Amino acid sequence: MQGNRSFVLVSRPRGIPSESDFAIRSHRIPEIGKGEFLIRNHYASIDPAMRGWLDDRPSYLPPVAIGDAMRAGTIGRVVASKAPGIKLGDWVKGINAIQDYSVGRTGDSNRPVDPGRVTSMSHYISVAGGAGLTAHVGINRILRPVAGETLLVSSAAGAVGAVAGQLARLAGARVIGIAGGADKCRRLTAELGFDHAIDHRGKDADTLLAELVAAAPEGLDMVFENVGGPGLDAALLHLKKHARIALCGLISEYNSPPIGARNLKELVFRSATMRGFTLLDFPEEIAPATGQLIDLANSGAIICAEQIEHGLDNAFQTFLNLFVGGTSGKLILKLI
Amino acid sequence: MQGNRSFVLVSRPRGIPSESDFAIRSHRIPEIGKGEFLIRNHYASIDPAMRGWLDDRPSYLPPVAIGDAMRAGTIGRVVASKAPGIKLGDWVKGINAIQDYSVGRTGDSNRPVDPGRVTSMSHYISVAGGAGLTAHVGINRILRPVAGETLLVSSAAGAVGAVAGQLARLAGARVIGIAGGADKCRRLTAELGFDHAIDHRGKDADTLLAELVAAAPEGLDMVFENVGGPGLDAALLHLKKHARIALCGLISEYNSPPIGARNLKELVFRSATMRGFTLLDFPEEIAPATGQLIDLANSGAIICAEQIEHGLDNAFQTFLNLFVGGTSGKLILKLI
Repeated sequence: MQGNRSFVLVSRPRGIPSESDFAIRSHRIPEIGKGEFLIRNHYASIDPAMRGWLDDRPSYLPPVAIGDAMRAGTIGRVVASKAPGIKLGDWVKGINAIQDYSVGRTGDSNRPVDPGRVTSMSHYISVAGGAGLTAHVGINRILRPVAGETLLVSSAAGAVGAVAGQLARLAGARVIGIAGGADKCRRLTAELGFDHAIDHRGKDADTLLAELVAAAPEGLDMVFENVGGPGLDAALLHLKKHARIALCGLISEYNSPPIGARNLKELVFRSATMRGFTLLDFPEEIAPATGQLIDLANSGAIICAEQIEHGLDNAFQTFLNLFVGGTSGKLILKLI
Repeated sequence: MQGNRSFVLVSRPRGIPSESDFAIRSHRIPEIGKGEFLIRNHYASIDPAMRGWLDDRPSYLPPVAIGDAMRAGTIGRVVASKAPGIKLGDWVKGINAIQDYSVGRTGDSNRPVDPGRVTSMSHYISVAGGAGLTAHVGINRILRPVAGETLLVSSAAGAVGAVAGQLARLAGARVIGIAGGADKCRRLTAELGFDHAIDHRGKDADTLLAELVAAAPEGLDMVFENVGGPGLDAALLHLKKHARIALCGLISEYNSPPIGARNLKELVFRSATMRGFTLLDFPEEIAPATGQLIDLANSGAIICAEQIEHGLDNAFQTFLNLFVGGTSGKLILKLI
């Protein structure tokens, strides 16, 4: 009996996280009280946003405390319950932690999900999880593509970018993806239906701009930005008048002193708008968007590749892969 | 008889413009044809945006061509007319050039203005010119302040910033201005009614952030940004949730390779929006806003300081002062 093993933050990373910033610790499996339920976590979502939660300053969620298990979106199964409406065997989705067992409480983030709606429970943290839902609100609430418009998506083979690009294509937009490496680029056009893919590896902003101009001579109506750096600098130089940028993330700036966006003045010249957002801004979208995304995935209208790694012992390496371009599709840690 | 003297672009500046990039050239006073009128220019508006027109790439207006007189907003008087509705002696406001005489045409930017409405014709290029009108649309169309909100204005003693801050105060906002030097800061609070002024001289983003936190502990609802650099970096770190930034200009980035905005990821963390704009986006506002601004200025409700320099020969030095912090209030070149 191992008890409750957790992936715990033991020191705050500077730059790229190192293995010594984390430890696997084991505690007793918690007792539950009235209104609580015990969740056996099956899947944990591994996301770039987790890097932000490690810094000792508030972002849209408080920092993870030293000594606490690393926060993550999870899918798990209820193994004990003293909460009304939550039964033994229920599947729940919530923001918990990378650990074997978490305690849920009535009114917290945990919500039952229907196993009959999906072919794999992991879909609730990929296409119908934070990644797919973030893509959904970014496209449908921030960018609102109109048929015939051109969208640029960065980190387009990533979990959010791949769904964002596919949703925009379903709305009739022309979609260009930026990704790292020939394999990812091939997948964008061959499997995900992107109109064009640009491999950013080894290219500066000038080269990326030339490729953007070739791919979309008329300019960009929309940008779904996940990365920052030279790709964003190039995109800013190729905006159409009144272009809109959904700023979903800036993964290139999370680990190191940021290079900075050098062409912001293009927002003035183009009367363009850059809007930062997170899924948490649109709580009313979560239920309907979850249903829509599951339907689209089940029908094959959108594809959400999953990269599933196994075991709590691999939590650090799985997380690290996000920052070295080593992932493709939604990164998930399967705990059991 | 000197003919028509013009301030002409002879080479494209790299970085800060130098005197050799310009020349004063004299031509014959043009003949006018049917539908045209000859304008004796009295005042030329000298603005940071002019720097952008010198680069050989389109912004919101095409670049000024080598050999052409430098484009500027002007106020002048009609000295000959073959255009219907334009009479000898009419005052007209338009986008013309820094030169003694310009030719206006029916349907171009030149519009008659009423000398009886103002105490000085220069007001049509300060408080009721591009500067004041840009402040007006930035405040009333982009930021839309609500009473009790806090606004940060950069280059707050400048022509646009000073009017923007005063308009926001009239709407009930609390207004903090950033300016360069103790004199400008004193003027912001003592004369223009700003609630607080921060002198940016010699301060890095961390120091500016500390002063912002002290001045507005609860954070910033709005930023009217004219500058970029450390002030914008500090502002980004002190945004409230759902803050909005009107990006009017980035004068710190016009002359040199830009440092870049280093804290853009705060837009994600704060679900904040940065919207670039120019006055040209809101043509329908120009007539009503001109009237409102003149009324506010005539009643003393807002003050628009003017710094008037004299003579075409001083055109270069006047323009250069914009980029070395040597101006206070709306910079105007009086030609006659």
